[in-house]
Amino acid sequence: MSKTVELAKHLEKLHINNMYKNDFYWTWDKTDEELDAIFTVADALRDLRERNKSTRIFDSGLGISIFRDNSTRTRFSFASACNLLGLTVQDLDEKKSQIAHGETVRETANMVSFMADVIGIRDDMFIGEGHKYQKTFMDAVAEGYQNDILEQRPTLVNLQCDVDHPTQCMADMLHIIHHFGGVENLKGKKIAMTWAYSPSYGKPLSVPQGVIGLMTRFGMDVVLAHPEGYDVMPEVEEIAKKNAEATGGSYKKVTTMEEAFKDADIVYPKSWAPFAAMEERTKLYQAGDEDGIDALEKKLLEQNAQHKDWTCSEDMMKLTKDGKALYMHCLPADITGLSCKEGEVDNSVFDRYIDPLYKEASYKPYIIAAMIMMSKVKDPVAALMAMDAEDDKRKKF
Amino acid sequence: MSKTVELAKHLEKLHINNMYKNDFYWTWDKTDEELDAIFTVADALRDLRERNKSTRIFDSGLGISIFRDNSTRTRFSFASACNLLGLTVQDLDEKKSQIAHGETVRETANMVSFMADVIGIRDDMFIGEGHKYQKTFMDAVAEGYQNDILEQRPTLVNLQCDVDHPTQCMADMLHIIHHFGGVENLKGKKIAMTWAYSPSYGKPLSVPQGVIGLMTRFGMDVVLAHPEGYDVMPEVEEIAKKNAEATGGSYKKVTTMEEAFKDADIVYPKSWAPFAAMEERTKLYQAGDEDGIDALEKKLLEQNAQHKDWTCSEDMMKLTKDGKALYMHCLPADITGLSCKEGEVDNSVFDRYIDPLYKEASYKPYIIAAMIMMSKVKDPVAALMAMDAEDDKRKKF
Amino acid sequence: MSKTVELAKHLEKLHINNMYKNDFYWTWDKTDEELDAIFTVADALRDLRERNKSTRIFDSGLGISIFRDNSTRTRFSFASACNLLGLTVQDLDEKKSQIAHGETVRETANMVSFMADVIGIRDDMFIGEGHKYQKTFMDAVAEGYQNDILEQRPTLVNLQCDVDHPTQCMADMLHIIHHFGGVENLKGKKIAMTWAYSPSYGKPLSVPQGVIGLMTRFGMDVVLAHPEGYDVMPEVEEIAKKNAEATGGSYKKVTTMEEAFKDADIVYPKSWAPFAAMEERTKLYQAGDEDGIDALEKKLLEQNAQHKDWTCSEDMMKLTKDGKALYMHCLPADITGLSCKEGEVDNSVFDRYIDPLYKEASYKPYIIAAMIMMSKVKDPVAALMAMDAEDDKRKKF
Repeated sequence: MSKTVELAKHLEKLHINNMYKNDFYWTWDKTDEELDAIFTVADALRDLRERNKSTRIFDSGLGISIFRDNSTRTRFSFASACNLLGLTVQDLDEKKSQIAHGETVRETANMVSFMADVIGIRDDMFIGEGHKYQKTFMDAVAEGYQNDILEQRPTLVNLQCDVDHPTQCMADMLHIIHHFGGVENLKGKKIAMTWAYSPSYGKPLSVPQGVIGLMTRFGMDVVLAHPEGYDVMPEVEEIAKKNAEATGGSYKKVTTMEEAFKDADIVYPKSWAPFAAMEERTKLYQAGDEDGIDALEKKLLEQNAQHKDWTCSEDMMKLTKDGKALYMHCLPADITGLSCKEGEVDNSVFDRYIDPLYKEASYKPYIIAAMIMMSKVKDPVAALMAMDAEDDKRKKF
Repeated sequence: MSKTVELAKHLEKLHINNMYKNDFYWTWDKTDEELDAIFTVADALRDLRERNKSTRIFDSGLGISIFRDNSTRTRFSFASACNLLGLTVQDLDEKKSQIAHGETVRETANMVSFMADVIGIRDDMFIGEGHKYQKTFMDAVAEGYQNDILEQRPTLVNLQCDVDHPTQCMADMLHIIHHFGGVENLKGKKIAMTWAYSPSYGKPLSVPQGVIGLMTRFGMDVVLAHPEGYDVMPEVEEIAKKNAEATGGSYKKVTTMEEAFKDADIVYPKSWAPFAAMEERTKLYQAGDEDGIDALEKKLLEQNAQHKDWTCSEDMMKLTKDGKALYMHCLPADITGLSCKEGEVDNSVFDRYIDPLYKEASYKPYIIAAMIMMSKVKDPVAALMAMDAEDDKRKKF
Repeated sequence: MSKTVELAKHLEKLHINNMYKNDFYWTWDKTDEELDAIFTVADALRDLRERNKSTRIFDSGLGISIFRDNSTRTRFSFASACNLLGLTVQDLDEKKSQIAHGETVRETANMVSFMADVIGIRDDMFIGEGHKYQKTFMDAVAEGYQNDILEQRPTLVNLQCDVDHPTQCMADMLHIIHHFGGVENLKGKKIAMTWAYSPSYGKPLSVPQGVIGLMTRFGMDVVLAHPEGYDVMPEVEEIAKKNAEATGGSYKKVTTMEEAFKDADIVYPKSWAPFAAMEERTKLYQAGDEDGIDALEKKLLEQNAQHKDWTCSEDMMKLTKDGKALYMHCLPADITGLSCKEGEVDNSVFDRYIDPLYKEASYKPYIIAAMIMMSKVKDPVAALMAMDAEDDKRKKF
């Protein structure tokens, strides 16, 4: 029995009826079994590809990508996932487009979706805006489908919003699962999601939020640490707490990196902007107050600079379980002495973890492909079994 | 009998031999039966896609797009059409290209066409230039094919030139046909193609020209209205007149929006630049006279501003047949109180027609796909019948 | 027996085991039989396409392109080649990417290669840099594959580096082979690779280097000519000398265009930058010395301007064998009186050779496709035979 057939048999036991024709906004919208289904299908698709099996679901069709912020990793992951399933990516480059001043999201959404099977959106820059944009967009295509404008309702993969970064955090989580040899081994493992200093300004909060919102569902002890003023969205902290209660794990906030790193099995040190400042920035942008933005940026850089000791140094790593915690990062990291003078992580630490870091990133295309497949295929078990059985080869010769 | 088979049977009766291996520049180059064929194939392709049938004609092949002006709708429509038929879009982004200063169109045309099946070009900015560019391009690839440089002669889909915007107007027309329940119901229907105020400068004339050049072929009463100085190209008016004579319809020019809207069944209020000014602008650009262009632009904006009463207001709509004419626009519209202070149309009017407007736009990908198919497939009847009969699915699972 | 079957039978006799899973950096890394294999497969793929046979090797898969310099011809050739074989191009546009300041090539290479079958890189601007970048990139993906980060090791097609431009020169060579009716007719033919004046600054040396490094392998008399100070890399000249010795041809350097053109069967007059100046420029860029770069540019333009007599005029052409040498250029050329006041070639000369010039360019997509196929397909003979025999059509209807 191939690995894919085993995984398909596992998938068969899960309650996943809600996933078909549905969107993926936030991991906490999904049940545990639904997340399990994504992990399972991601592993199966990887196995199929490794065995040169064709995983084309689509003979033709479009995956629309909208990156309202720069991206390499997520862009290539989305492109890879679409290609794996037979979809062609059509990117909406807002700079090259005739999107009129004041054109509604509703109109744009319909205009680019006439033959779209899936929509991937990254909109992470402004607190209170990213998710709203995605929601407005998807409401519009749902309405377009209802009114016979669109042949099908495309489904959403959230490629990062202001609240969550589910493709990243699900890839992170699958990496953890495989690293520790299965979900069953995660109970009681300590993971430290900590702020870290970076010379840059205004990184999104969606990674730390996504991590505490997801990792608290596996019985782990999740610790969040950051300097004063760098709080994440309180709603997401509430979710983390509830998750922890439900799964026998824990969620705790501490005030130093040292405390977070102490005996941790996993560390995820990463810079982000203070929530309050991000809210302020959103208002300044909406008001078009360039001077205000510059002043805020300056203030934030100064504020950041007071916390240069929040860095994943060799000494800090020594505090972790046997000095050997699994170091994680969504990449690119600000690496002290390599990409910047003082940053999130010592070069020697980063360098020691390059293989697991790249492996972590390597799950993202499969996670995205699994999200697409679960939303577009009514019977994913049958589909996996058929792909496993077929003679079709990805590479024919 | 499926809808597609019915449509194929209708297609069989039409004289369409001239379409194979031929280009689509202007609707008035085509016979009535040829236009009928485009509508028929567009409807069939839509039906096939709705029924999850594979419509891939190409196993591999390229559709080259050249947008010399920004575009969202047409870009996505062309991409969708190519994808539907199995072609991959390769965009010639002149900014990223090594198109040498002084490089001939002849050279560029050959260099990008080695494996091109179809070429889509948008070049609408300068009177006397857009069509010329397309023609020079296509002459070059025809010569390249003759001289064994290219394996095949790609065919052209005009994605908007200075004279016509056939993919837009054909989509508009198919919308009208379906809205009124068939071509046979259009006789005597009044359509008002009118200028409307917009705070922007220099919109192409190809939409009003395309509309009067096409809509006059269906026995309708076509009325063009614009303020003094906003004439369209006289050659196209000649075509409109001849069309009207031949089909028992009429073509008329009036001087007020009110007169045009009076008892109209369809209204198409839209801004465009004055022809003479566009000719002047072309000359200024060719001379590289930036100051002249700025001065012209200022003059035109002032000239526009004298006609703010040319707007599709609720009051204006009341003049139409039962106050309920079908409102049309190629989008994006300048919407008073939504995207601008004063524009082409009242927000309340626009909002009431959103569904038909989006539906109108939704025909464009199928129109383009039909244009491609008619130019590339020798026996489109057999192709449609085969697609209808085959087990191949667009979405396999 | 079809042409493809004949070519496959020829391919069968060649020793080509080293090509599978291997990269294409420089032609001089490859044996004569390996180059023969590329030409053979290129001709076969062209024959298959002309006969509407499907040449898809891949059901899905990505070809990653990285253009660190502008490109039209090579970009479209790579896109065409990928499409011909069933790969989708995903372009790494460094401007749109979140490539962090200081991000290592190693990281970028892995991040874009999770599902990459082939990588095409153009990096030709700085002496000592282009090849190094490609090598670092490919070492990183090899390591990523070894460490289970990547499912497969993608293979490289060098789309132009600072040393060689193999896709161009191989296309040039295939053009020569067909023009003279076969490799066996090239013995003793004289080819003049000469510098020519252009009003522009700093064109790469990779074409002249690639030409002398490749054309010396076919028993031809290869002559390089340039003004003082425009030497090419001495390592490549060494290769040219050794090639010539091994094949019974010759490699010679002369100091005037006249001497080079005298009785030449083929002329390839083209501008390039002086090697020493390119080395200096590389250092200035690394130091971020903008003033130094401007000063260097000015100096080089002045230096260039002293050699305006190095131009492929009608008089110069008269010196060649019967005044009818085959004129070659990688395009775009700087054409006197057409694209510039004084340039590399007279308009009348260029115009007379347009068909062969475009034909020359038309081989590039097939050369690239052949390079990809030889690196990805274990048994290319069987693959060609199967493609030839199959009913699959590229254009189905």
